[in-house]
Amino acid sequence: MEKNKKVILDCDPGHDDAMAIILAASGISNLKIEAITTVAGNVEVEKNTLNALKVCDILGLDDIPVAQGAERPMVKEREIAEAIHGDSGLDGPILPEVPEKQIVETHAVDLIIEKIMASDGDITLVPTGPLTNIAMAMVKNPRIVPKIKEIVLMGGGTFGNWTPAAEFNIYVDAEAAKVVFESGVPIAMFGLDVTHQAVATDSVTKELDGIGNPVSGFVVELLKFFAKTYKEVFGFDGAPIHDACTVAYLIDESIFDMRHVRVDIETKGEFTYGMTAVDTLAVTGREPNVNFAYSLDADKFWELFRKALASYSD
Amino acid sequence: MEKNKKVILDCDPGHDDAMAIILAASGISNLKIEAITTVAGNVEVEKNTLNALKVCDILGLDDIPVAQGAERPMVKEREIAEAIHGDSGLDGPILPEVPEKQIVETHAVDLIIEKIMASDGDITLVPTGPLTNIAMAMVKNPRIVPKIKEIVLMGGGTFGNWTPAAEFNIYVDAEAAKVVFESGVPIAMFGLDVTHQAVATDSVTKELDGIGNPVSGFVVELLKFFAKTYKEVFGFDGAPIHDACTVAYLIDESIFDMRHVRVDIETKGEFTYGMTAVDTLAVTGREPNVNFAYSLDADKFWELFRKALASYSD
Amino acid sequence: MEKNKKVILDCDPGHDDAMAIILAASGISNLKIEAITTVAGNVEVEKNTLNALKVCDILGLDDIPVAQGAERPMVKEREIAEAIHGDSGLDGPILPEVPEKQIVETHAVDLIIEKIMASDGDITLVPTGPLTNIAMAMVKNPRIVPKIKEIVLMGGGTFGNWTPAAEFNIYVDAEAAKVVFESGVPIAMFGLDVTHQAVATDSVTKELDGIGNPVSGFVVELLKFFAKTYKEVFGFDGAPIHDACTVAYLIDESIFDMRHVRVDIETKGEFTYGMTAVDTLAVTGREPNVNFAYSLDADKFWELFRKALASYSD
Amino acid sequence: MEKNKKVILDCDPGHDDAMAIILAASGISNLKIEAITTVAGNVEVEKNTLNALKVCDILGLDDIPVAQGAERPMVKEREIAEAIHGDSGLDGPILPEVPEKQIVETHAVDLIIEKIMASDGDITLVPTGPLTNIAMAMVKNPRIVPKIKEIVLMGGGTFGNWTPAAEFNIYVDAEAAKVVFESGVPIAMFGLDVTHQAVATDSVTKELDGIGNPVSGFVVELLKFFAKTYKEVFGFDGAPIHDACTVAYLIDESIFDMRHVRVDIETKGEFTYGMTAVDTLAVTGREPNVNFAYSLDADKFWELFRKALASYSD
Repeated sequence: MEKNKKVILDCDPGHDDAMAIILAASGISNLKIEAITTVAGNVEVEKNTLNALKVCDILGLDDIPVAQGAERPMVKEREIAEAIHGDSGLDGPILPEVPEKQIVETHAVDLIIEKIMASDGDITLVPTGPLTNIAMAMVKNPRIVPKIKEIVLMGGGTFGNWTPAAEFNIYVDAEAAKVVFESGVPIAMFGLDVTHQAVATDSVTKELDGIGNPVSGFVVELLKFFAKTYKEVFGFDGAPIHDACTVAYLIDESIFDMRHVRVDIETKGEFTYGMTAVDTLAVTGREPNVNFAYSLDADKFWELFRKALASYSD
Repeated sequence: MEKNKKVILDCDPGHDDAMAIILAASGISNLKIEAITTVAGNVEVEKNTLNALKVCDILGLDDIPVAQGAERPMVKEREIAEAIHGDSGLDGPILPEVPEKQIVETHAVDLIIEKIMASDGDITLVPTGPLTNIAMAMVKNPRIVPKIKEIVLMGGGTFGNWTPAAEFNIYVDAEAAKVVFESGVPIAMFGLDVTHQAVATDSVTKELDGIGNPVSGFVVELLKFFAKTYKEVFGFDGAPIHDACTVAYLIDESIFDMRHVRVDIETKGEFTYGMTAVDTLAVTGREPNVNFAYSLDADKFWELFRKALASYSD
Repeated sequence: MEKNKKVILDCDPGHDDAMAIILAASGISNLKIEAITTVAGNVEVEKNTLNALKVCDILGLDDIPVAQGAERPMVKEREIAEAIHGDSGLDGPILPEVPEKQIVETHAVDLIIEKIMASDGDITLVPTGPLTNIAMAMVKNPRIVPKIKEIVLMGGGTFGNWTPAAEFNIYVDAEAAKVVFESGVPIAMFGLDVTHQAVATDSVTKELDGIGNPVSGFVVELLKFFAKTYKEVFGFDGAPIHDACTVAYLIDESIFDMRHVRVDIETKGEFTYGMTAVDTLAVTGREPNVNFAYSLDADKFWELFRKALASYSD
Repeated sequence: MEKNKKVILDCDPGHDDAMAIILAASGISNLKIEAITTVAGNVEVEKNTLNALKVCDILGLDDIPVAQGAERPMVKEREIAEAIHGDSGLDGPILPEVPEKQIVETHAVDLIIEKIMASDGDITLVPTGPLTNIAMAMVKNPRIVPKIKEIVLMGGGTFGNWTPAAEFNIYVDAEAAKVVFESGVPIAMFGLDVTHQAVATDSVTKELDGIGNPVSGFVVELLKFFAKTYKEVFGFDGAPIHDACTVAYLIDESIFDMRHVRVDIETKGEFTYGMTAVDTLAVTGREPNVNFAYSLDADKFWELFRKALASYSD
């Protein structure tokens, strides 16, 4: 598959972030990964960075620069989701203590600015963690804003998982989200509404396990751990692999049912901080700013994911 | 049917409020209506009061006191929903200009206080409009709070209809809602999640039309108008008769799937004022304060409603 | 002095509330006290009511109705200022356990409504506690709003005493204050800026002590206790008799330097709930809604107060 | 005078910013200016940068790096104060179109991080504009936080000038201010309470005019323009040279009356966004985090300033 869609994966791996990277780097992907940048989110940024490097090691992504980014949100205090991803942020598979791959010296915020400024306006940002790096880059150098092709992100939804109103990624840094959602850059948003439809049930995991290459083996270990915590914390049967939806969309839009709507970020509320207010019924009269994913075709989604893992057998 | 459950219907009729009254006063109902009180909501309180009186005229409810209540919300400015219910608040059926029945002189807030204070703690409040009267009564005389048996209300939900986050009744007076939801009184809440399952489709309306008594005729006229506006404003096929869910629950709990959860009222948010933050996933650690209706058995619901209308033939 | 200015004193006595009543009922006052209404504030409403009745006993105000009002704020939880006024709300003088005078049965909110509706638009409201009763009356019967001549209140200021931003009366029920300040009724506001200039220093107290009638004796006992707590809590040399400024203004406007400015009530802030944002520099462009007292002539103020106490010797 | 106190001047010149630089670089100053960094504030950052460079040209500060910083606030939209400082941000004196001095390539945020990380913890930050650069640096590299010796800033106060509650610098980027005030770095704060005591009256300006060197001439032109706008906009007799207070404090602490208090930044309020809630009466019980300047000795202040200008004659 020709790699002609330039992306920067901005993430906090994270089980589902790892799967987004695996999908993006697979043989069936048309994405050219310009860089992987990390951000504090599920766990501390240093752990997320180690995890990103280890995933690169496993996939053999030697040439893709990995840059470490924001250690804390723009304004509020740091929030950690260890309950969901384990102490390492990627518990489950047995991984080497220390990755072979090294980070570049540039800060993620600067690498994003450099890449965008050097581009022809053809880079898509794919944030699957809190939006701190993206917003910091926009504030540090507003000239990148018109040069970003699109932002395809995982975050938010019409309901929450970290609070009744807010999803974790947006809740962690709602001020950053506000900057991004008000930037004018085209946004495709994969929130809980759709990612809760991307659940790796037992039968899905079993089928993936049958592929039998090292990457699929790694993925199966991830899914088993992730499913366990989703069962314990949320009572789900199987883990939703939220972040992978973004990459799946970039590879095959037809998997998703999208609608253009207004989404505003709540930063003032007492019980609703970090909510993405999605104007599904078009009652606000505010200009649509987001291409919002309402649903996905689960069969197509998992078929794509299965093929992606199978491509690592080649 | 013995009338042994004492209720006060606090409403802003309103098509679906009217249906709540019709259901409550029907031959199959076990509810003893102690009073009907009105509140500004869908339209001005004077219009809502006229509509309540006219509905009483139609149903022959001569002995039930009707008291007029709050003309405006407790703190914010007044909001009107004429787009939904028409200029009169009850557009559709042709009704006499002036009702026969008269209101009592007592203000709704005082009538609620009087009835509750005179009771043995066996009165259930059934608010199907903004919660202004109930909250005003609680503030004016906090001693009523421990004497209210239960509050069975229509309002809120995990999503909104007046804004992306807020349902109309709560949005109109979120401060009143905050008072009520934090009062400690047991609350059964029928929000949009469940009331959007109580949709009078064409086939429902046709079936009700077949009943052929004056009350069912009145209801069918209401449903036709209400369905038209729901089609125009929200794109729905058929109108959800939100408010009637409260009364249906009091007559037959088994129609509904309820869960005990925490619900907090947002009064500070920039985009989320009036949201009912429903802690479905139990992530807040806050004490549950609401018995929340997630779904209903539509067949049972409409069967109840059909029987209620048919009882008016006797 | 002819009593031709009709007022309702709405208060939470309270040392300085007591002095406002004493001033209003004195021989040099032109105020006709239509009613005294009480509200939860400095202490529980029941205590404030007892204190109001006892003050009436001392002053021989047998004909003035005293009505008890709101026990709690409109929306938020109750806040008590016992640290300032002692356990009884009027610590200092030795008073009988039980007053001779009795309250009327009517709730303060209803008495305010009745009096205003029965008036020719010539009644001034003088709230010296939280604004709960006034706002509740406005919400319960909005028709009183255009019939209120003026509201002359103690509350707020350009700085706070209960929080860095908020004065106690407004902080206790900022939602009520919002209703009142946005009502359109003419408001004269005596906030901390001016009331902190009405400090009963030792020499003032000594001079008042020389008057030597029972009322001045009572006042001196009040001032001594109040000065002690102001010293301990705030480090002041002498107690500001905040509430009496309102009555002094009604008797002799020339004591005060007033300016017409915009004042908005903050109900959303994290650190500023209950602030009165006073647009001294006229930077908001919002319509002035308040006649704001910036300063007073302390000599004239105390001369008035001295004469008022002396009038009780007659 | 030995230059042994290392400072970074972070500013948006701006008439009073210019005077802070002039004071800091004068012969009587003990400050070693490590860098001058600019930020959007009074006008666009590019204009502020040009002004900073021109001031350096006038003062002959060839060796001090000037770095351009944030073009916009961290979260909210940009606010401009052209009304106060004129179109160029430094209207009044006739200046060359293009400065001789050039900026360094490094972004201000990065220069701050570099300087702090390379230091022995002996650099004081002196922000006299919005706090965007400082907060961005703290978020981008939290390891600088414990290495900053002190932050001596102009901003805030117990009252506002841009809104009734907020001073311009804090209002422009209250989120940045929140980051800085909650960072734990020692802060000395010069808000409107004290800077409104640093007013260049006509007689002050006349005296400075008598010094008769090019720098004093430049200052006098600045003061004349600034006084004119302060007269027109705020009705002041003479312009307060806010920003110079910070540098004066670093040269001679004894000019100021300081107290250690709690200051919190309001970012949620409806009417109070950007307020610095100063806990003067110590009522919050929150840990003091700011050394707050309540007043200054105006004679000493102007004597210092006069000597500083005179030193440019040497």
